[in-house]
Amino acid sequence: MIDLSLYLVLDPVLCAEKGMVQTAVEAVEGGATVVQLRAPDWKKRAFYDCAVELKAALKPYGVPLIINDHVDIAMAMDADGVHVGQKDLPANVVRQMIGKDKILGLSVSNMEEAIACDTSIVDYIGIGPIFATATKPDAAPAMGIDGFATAAAHCPLPNVAIGSVKEKDIVDLVNVGCNGIAVVSAICGQADVKKAALGLKAAWQKAIDSKAR
Amino acid sequence: MIDLSLYLVLDPVLCAEKGMVQTAVEAVEGGATVVQLRAPDWKKRAFYDCAVELKAALKPYGVPLIINDHVDIAMAMDADGVHVGQKDLPANVVRQMIGKDKILGLSVSNMEEAIACDTSIVDYIGIGPIFATATKPDAAPAMGIDGFATAAAHCPLPNVAIGSVKEKDIVDLVNVGCNGIAVVSAICGQADVKKAALGLKAAWQKAIDSKAR
Repeated sequence: MIDLSLYLVLDPVLCAEKGMVQTAVEAVEGGATVVQLRAPDWKKRAFYDCAVELKAALKPYGVPLIINDHVDIAMAMDADGVHVGQKDLPANVVRQMIGKDKILGLSVSNMEEAIACDTSIVDYIGIGPIFATATKPDAAPAMGIDGFATAAAHCPLPNVAIGSVKEKDIVDLVNVGCNGIAVVSAICGQADVKKAALGLKAAWQKAIDSKAR
Repeated sequence: MIDLSLYLVLDPVLCAEKGMVQTAVEAVEGGATVVQLRAPDWKKRAFYDCAVELKAALKPYGVPLIINDHVDIAMAMDADGVHVGQKDLPANVVRQMIGKDKILGLSVSNMEEAIACDTSIVDYIGIGPIFATATKPDAAPAMGIDGFATAAAHCPLPNVAIGSVKEKDIVDLVNVGCNGIAVVSAICGQADVKKAALGLKAAWQKAIDSKAR
């Protein structure tokens, strides 16, 4: 199964200076285990070109590249998977298009959506926003650690927590059943991207080790 | 070959009152020969749901339904074709995804793009904007009837003229090699949609008859 522990969601605005590809590579060198390309305001040619470049850059690391929303782009450049939200194409339709071997993620923002998730179709869920976030203006209300715990408990699939998750929140999330953190601003736009990823990864490992003890 | 003579491009804002499906049906009853669903601001679930509904509504009329930009939606609901612009997925990539039997249209906004069009891949071109248009804020500069004529002359594919084309412009366009007019505001939001379509269709037929003589 895919290692969701440090799931990077690329943001075009925050990555403007360093670039999407360079940010992704440095993050992966610091321990990011998944990269998602999300650029809802981009035209598809630019999105596609970036996806092709990212795929080539990530190949040596063996880290999966997930495409947000655009199943056509994912199919055209043979991405490792697709991530959809509740207002995107239905998960069953997406699964039929991409085939059984690709990764399919679904965003849920409350317990009801977690329960409604078809676990025979979806591979993992993104639960959030945990906290209020500036990088997704149309996000649902923040659910907090408690809301995350409730949603996670109602869906047997692996999960990632998303929405302004910081290093200090990792212990709490791990203790309520979190399988990974999806981050945007904790990595994108940071002065030292690799160092930021290393810090998150170390905090993650420490939380996992404490829980196991 | 597809009859491009009266090509309706649905606009969510202009169709808000009557609805996309009702507008399309009335337009087709008035003589529209193609319907394109274009809703760049919609999330894909809403776009997909509308496309499914449109497909069912248009089936009795045998009029093709073309999906703008979103190849994934077109594939998911088995549309008759896809229309892409210069900043959308490349035509060769789209053709590979949709197969050889689906209709593929490409927007061109100048002679250079008309020349660059791969006629072995694309089925028809949309040339425009002929005049300045309010329904596509990011459109290229208006090219006028002369600009249309130049672009049309440099691409052997069937064409439609788009961009604030009105009934009065049809004669001029037909006389310089126009194979159809693509309209948005000349039909969407009109008080009597069927009558608007009938008027455009009659003007088209009259222009064709005059040219043939």
